[in-house]
Parts: sequence; C-alpha cells; structure tokens
Amino acid sequence: MATHEPDALAKTTRVNALFDFYEPLLTEKQRTFLKYYFLDDYSLGEIATESGISRQAVFEHIKRAEHALEDYESKLKLLAKHERIGLIARELAGEVGALSIEQDDKQRLQAAIGRLMQSE
Amino acid sequence: MATHEPDALAKTTRVNALFDFYEPLLTEKQRTFLKYYFLDDYSLGEIATESGISRQAVFEHIKRAEHALEDYESKLKLLAKHERIGLIARELAGEVGALSIEQDDKQRLQAAIGRLMQSE
Repeated sequence: MATHEPDALAKTTRVNALFDFYEPLLTEKQRTFLKYYFLDDYSLGEIATESGISRQAVFEHIKRAEHALEDYESKLKLLAKHERIGLIARELAGEVGALSIEQDDKQRLQAAIGRLMQSE
Repeated sequence: MATHEPDALAKTTRVNALFDFYEPLLTEKQRTFLKYYFLDDYSLGEIATESGISRQAVFEHIKRAEHALEDYESKLKLLAKHERIGLIARELAGEVGALSIEQDDKQRLQAAIGRLMQSE
C-alpha cells in the first residue's frame, strides 16, 4: 500500500481526472504504470516486483507518464474546461430549480441540463 | 487558388474545425502546411514554390497532417462532443426563450447559457 498524505490525495485525484480525459493519447506503458499506481493503489515496490524492473525505474515511468498528462492538459485544457462547464451547468440547474413554472417545463429544462452534464 | 468543389468545401470546414481543437498537439510543420492549404487557401503549387519542396511533397505533408487531426478526433472526439453540447445549449436557449417568466430571470438564464456556449 502506498501512503497517502493530504497532498498525495489531491495529486491522486488530479491524475485520475487527467487520466479520464487523456488516456486515449497515452502509450500502453504510460497507461499501465499510471493505472497500477494511481487507480489500483499499488506501491512502487509492488509494481517493481510485478513488472520485474527496479523500484527506481517504476518511479521514472510514473513521473514521465504524469508529465505527459500535465503536458496534454497545458495544451488542451480539457479538465479546466470541464470544471468551468460543470460550474455553469450547476448554476443553471439551481436557477431552473428556483423558477415558478409548470412542472413539465421544469422537467424538460432539467433533463436538458442533465444531458449537458453527462456530455461533458 | 485551390478549386473548391462541394466535397472539398465540406472537407475544408471539417479540417478547420478539427484544427481549432487539436492545433496545440500538432508539430510546427503540420500546423504550417495545414494553415497554408486550408485556412489561407493557397494551392499545392503555391505552397511548393513558397517552401522550396515539390508539389508532391507538399501533398504528402498535408495528407499526414490531416490524418493526425482525424486520429486525435478518433481518440478524444472533441469536435463530436462540441457539436452535441452546442445542440443541447441551443435547445435550452429555445426553451428558456419560450418561458413566461420575469425578464430578469430570463436574462440570467440566457447569460449562463451564453457562457456555456462560449466555454465550449
């Protein structure tokens, strides 16, 4: 088990979120090491034993894969955009919820906002 | 001037749209040739003269760059997602426009939908 300090947790959350967006752009190797470490929560030592390479080599692979994710985010900013759109969609949902309108109209608007959030 | 048949126009529109999303992932060379051909509407011959390489070499560069754009789209589907979200946002705008509510409420909702479209 890897130890998780508060900073490490925030980092895991971020890497997981970036992984969701950029997984299709990663190489098989980058994908594998990131999954083991951040999604499946294996330790560097466990991954090293499993893959037959040194703990240091595992560490380097993970660093490089993380760097690739941050590099894609710096270029495409999909996570930042996702968070911005999520905020606006939640704001819209709140506004619509507070309107005094026909229940049918409200449900149709809420359904559209729901589809928006799912598309993002 | 490149000749533009209906199919060629549809293709130019698509390449321009994909370029908007994936430009940051392209190499300098891919970016340059796509810009000359699809955005600035130079002919293969003009680009060849300008860059000092053969017309065939220019053609190959453009093909490869187009392929790179389509490859990114097949992986990340940002254009497809953009079109889906645009449809929902326009649907929401239509629904909100038809509501009998206070002008203030309507304007606030429309402003949020506008920000949503701009974010996408």
